[in-house]
Amino acid sequence: MHRVAPSFIREILAAASAPEVLSLAGGLPRADLFPLEALHGALDAALSRHGSRALQYAPTPGDPELRAWIAKRLGTAHGIPTHPDEIMITTGSQQGLDLVGKLFRDDGVAMEDPGYLGAILAFQALGIRPIPLADPQQLSTTGAGLFYGMSRYQNPRGADYGHELAAALAEALTRHDRWMVEDDPYADLFLGDGDPPPTVASLNPGRVIYLGSFSKSVVPGLRLGYIRAPREILRLLEPLKQAADLHSSPILQLGLLELLTGGAFDLEHHLRSIRHAYRAQRDALEQALARWLPDLRIAQRPSGGMFLWARGAVPTDSCIPAALKAGVAFVPGRYFYLAEPDECSLRLNFSSLEPPELETAARRLALVLQEAG
Amino acid sequence: MHRVAPSFIREILAAASAPEVLSLAGGLPRADLFPLEALHGALDAALSRHGSRALQYAPTPGDPELRAWIAKRLGTAHGIPTHPDEIMITTGSQQGLDLVGKLFRDDGVAMEDPGYLGAILAFQALGIRPIPLADPQQLSTTGAGLFYGMSRYQNPRGADYGHELAAALAEALTRHDRWMVEDDPYADLFLGDGDPPPTVASLNPGRVIYLGSFSKSVVPGLRLGYIRAPREILRLLEPLKQAADLHSSPILQLGLLELLTGGAFDLEHHLRSIRHAYRAQRDALEQALARWLPDLRIAQRPSGGMFLWARGAVPTDSCIPAALKAGVAFVPGRYFYLAEPDECSLRLNFSSLEPPELETAARRLALVLQEAG
Repeated sequence: MHRVAPSFIREILAAASAPEVLSLAGGLPRADLFPLEALHGALDAALSRHGSRALQYAPTPGDPELRAWIAKRLGTAHGIPTHPDEIMITTGSQQGLDLVGKLFRDDGVAMEDPGYLGAILAFQALGIRPIPLADPQQLSTTGAGLFYGMSRYQNPRGADYGHELAAALAEALTRHDRWMVEDDPYADLFLGDGDPPPTVASLNPGRVIYLGSFSKSVVPGLRLGYIRAPREILRLLEPLKQAADLHSSPILQLGLLELLTGGAFDLEHHLRSIRHAYRAQRDALEQALARWLPDLRIAQRPSGGMFLWARGAVPTDSCIPAALKAGVAFVPGRYFYLAEPDECSLRLNFSSLEPPELETAARRLALVLQEAG
Repeated sequence: MHRVAPSFIREILAAASAPEVLSLAGGLPRADLFPLEALHGALDAALSRHGSRALQYAPTPGDPELRAWIAKRLGTAHGIPTHPDEIMITTGSQQGLDLVGKLFRDDGVAMEDPGYLGAILAFQALGIRPIPLADPQQLSTTGAGLFYGMSRYQNPRGADYGHELAAALAEALTRHDRWMVEDDPYADLFLGDGDPPPTVASLNPGRVIYLGSFSKSVVPGLRLGYIRAPREILRLLEPLKQAADLHSSPILQLGLLELLTGGAFDLEHHLRSIRHAYRAQRDALEQALARWLPDLRIAQRPSGGMFLWARGAVPTDSCIPAALKAGVAFVPGRYFYLAEPDECSLRLNFSSLEPPELETAARRLALVLQEAG
């Protein structure tokens, strides 16, 4: 049997859910900011409007109107002009990784290192050993046909490619005949001023398979995301989607469509309020860390997303038992690496706790790391 | 890239959805029998009761109460005593095939032939070439570690193993150290009198990975099913489920739980009314075929499920254009075979049309097959 080892992270996350633990570990959006009432009303309206049609088997690529809405917004909000036929609805953007992994299984997959754990897991579940790349520009030196990366607000490092690297990568994809699967789950969580960093998809949409998600912009419980890809790629992904789960739930697709188009909910207003809250939380965590852990090196202020990446003076993995005892949780950076890990690194989430809790969490973390030093 | 050929069946099903075509092709449950109001109310109640908890990320194996409900019912209704820890919720039972396929990818997979197309597709999507078995008892002659089969109301043949074969297979699994993935989506659609045919899981639960579905007993639009397996197997499947889509939607899981336990809906009563309707439809189709196509050989009266398997005097695949023109659709049997197909076979669905429509469909089918003969 093909065994994928359950990770120690699962244990950390389980322990982190205890009420006395302040968790900087997971990647949960703040539940009190969810559009609960609006989504409740939208699901209700969708069932009233569509009746049994919402409950029957449905087309594999997803609801046509929802695909059209997504295509339009990708053009207007993210600079990726898109036709509805270039969109396929997925059961969360995590499913996009599974489907794309299946398509490129025999071509080899390279990915940024450190990188998103869910991507590592999705590839390993398919028997793929991803090739670690510290720098995406090394892509052409590997034999891999596919490169996995997050061009902005990267999980775990909170980093952006920026214009120069994104443009170089976009160009290299065409020149070296490679594909990129660009994971952009925090697309709507830009926390800076001015323009958000560019995606590779916006620069070379013909060579990028772009994964989007409604988990951060609306709610994770919908388990709805999408793939944006050239038609010839979507045609190959469609039977793989059918094989995986036939199609995503029409109840939820029609509910989401109703939410986005029904008029009772203003997505852009909602996103502004999430961004406002997360910006304050990012700043609060950064300031608390500066106060309580002045020696902690923060790689960079993340311009979006949910995570801050830092480096301490001691190996962080062995601090977990003491941290949980002190009532704080984080993820040791080592778990995000495929190649040689930086044992002193750690990933800190700022999206699920409010500023006063972040302050307390930083104080507890300081106690633990200083004691270990 | 790993290409899985889109099947001609997709074209048939697309053409069959035209309003002027009476479809015996798909496997759709009758939408007018869906518990629309009850499910609408249950989703509403679940969101009111659980609030934002229904919208947040959730545990990978599924909601504990829903798992407990399923475990209990498997024991009482299907003679498979089950602990809640032996249940994992899946995004439709189709996902169970994907996950089990990933686990057994390197062990080899054998499956009954002809067999369920979605299983063939799920295995092929993983690069597995299933070994066709006309008789499950040949399992031990193959090197395959896993056998896929439906022990009752089989898709496409509508056949049951019966006690003798089920018991022999249950025993062979232990003796030859093999596993079975038993797909039982029509578990609650027994249309006969007396006791329903036994499952292999009920005879040897320690060697069977059992897949259940709510698509036929409640509605397909929920995309909810489950895997029942020994704990040591579920432990290995859990990271694969996480890699596939993190977890199934808590909105739908909690809505389904509310439907099943809230008191406003009586599942057993609902199942009786579906069974009553499908029994009448099966009988109507059988009688109409006897009237209009007396030479068509019907393999056996299906004791449950949704399909009738038949054999005509001419190859059925080439009849499709004429059939669609005449306003009737079916699936040529050849598509269900991995080995040498029976070109004259065809699969006829009786769950989606009412008796008068089935009568008309049979008349149109007769015209087409007789013209081709």
